[in-house]
Amino acid sequence: MGQVDETKQLVGEEVVKYIKDGMKVGLGYGSTMYYAVKKLGERVKEEGLNIVGVPSANKTAEWAKEFGVPLTDFSKVQELDIAIDGADEVDSNLQLIKGGGGALFREKVVAAAAKEFYVIVDGSKIVNHLGAFKLPIEVVPFGWEVTASKIAKFGCEPVLREKDGEVFISDNGNYILDCNFQKITEPEKLHNELIGIVGVVETGLFVNMADKVLVGKDGKVEVVEK
Amino acid sequence: MGQVDETKQLVGEEVVKYIKDGMKVGLGYGSTMYYAVKKLGERVKEEGLNIVGVPSANKTAEWAKEFGVPLTDFSKVQELDIAIDGADEVDSNLQLIKGGGGALFREKVVAAAAKEFYVIVDGSKIVNHLGAFKLPIEVVPFGWEVTASKIAKFGCEPVLREKDGEVFISDNGNYILDCNFQKITEPEKLHNELIGIVGVVETGLFVNMADKVLVGKDGKVEVVEK
Repeated sequence: MGQVDETKQLVGEEVVKYIKDGMKVGLGYGSTMYYAVKKLGERVKEEGLNIVGVPSANKTAEWAKEFGVPLTDFSKVQELDIAIDGADEVDSNLQLIKGGGGALFREKVVAAAAKEFYVIVDGSKIVNHLGAFKLPIEVVPFGWEVTASKIAKFGCEPVLREKDGEVFISDNGNYILDCNFQKITEPEKLHNELIGIVGVVETGLFVNMADKVLVGKDGKVEVVEK
Repeated sequence: MGQVDETKQLVGEEVVKYIKDGMKVGLGYGSTMYYAVKKLGERVKEEGLNIVGVPSANKTAEWAKEFGVPLTDFSKVQELDIAIDGADEVDSNLQLIKGGGGALFREKVVAAAAKEFYVIVDGSKIVNHLGAFKLPIEVVPFGWEVTASKIAKFGCEPVLREKDGEVFISDNGNYILDCNFQKITEPEKLHNELIGIVGVVETGLFVNMADKVLVGKDGKVEVVEK
């Protein structure tokens, strides 16, 4: 196991300490989340922790089954006590960019349904300003060219995401535009402007959503709060 | 032909007078639009009018082929000179509710891509306040129950649209919630609030989009402008 993986394991296990008996828990996706789901399964088995998870990705659901974490879905529960997930970038105000993996929509639904949203990252994801990571924006396929030209006016060159030479299709059957804003000084303003464009389903800007960020670095976990 | 159909024909034919040589024309869908597309085809044949249409519905594309209206799509043109379409409700500020037919998203993309948007209706669609017609809201299926409960907080009971006993699926693979707001006093504010909810793709509120509304009543066409 390399140093990066060790850090991910450390952070992934640390966040599970916040999960209490009886909680409904939103479970995101990513390499750090893998360790969180694994640890959560251990607590269910060893302590008899009574929780139920709502996964944002099929892969997360597979991990949960493998490690013995009971699952439910939004037809049964509409509010979660806590959601935990990774992020692609985190700024000093706890604003995030997510969606590098293409599941930004489901991840946002899960985070938005939770009373508390905890983010787990390694130190490389902490930035002064969001935007070096290309902002993923989910758009409806019909008229996506029109949508892209409207997004471009906000200061980027949207690139249609591809995978294996084909257009990448999101979980919801939509397209993803990766947008090189370089430096996003006002994430909330930008998100509100982008979401108002006809054709934009969601942006990868998670604004005023994170309550705690657990940052792994040099074998330690730092907790950043609002 | 009944009186309602005569009125629809009158309005549908009248709007075509605004279409000039060389225009790129967004073409909506509905019983009034049928007459507009038919008339447009006549002008193409009889006057050699040189235009190209972008249809918002497959049915509109069929009519265009039947009546000889040349078509293109958003991969070729990203801005339209004019778009014409029907509406479910029109208030005195030219704010609209659309989407009774379930195609609100594509209709909005087409209208938003046009420099001018002209609406054609019969007099029964004119209201003092929007909202007697249930507002259609397009939502992503994942977590729709959470989205619905958030929409309800704005003063309605969202009902998941069904068709033939199955959940109705939009052109984009999404669900439609029909929301009985009864009386919408601030359409722009409501639209902005609703569109900010994670899970809402589009609302049927067409705010500050219509430039002219052609209203058919008692064998005449009245033109309402901003």
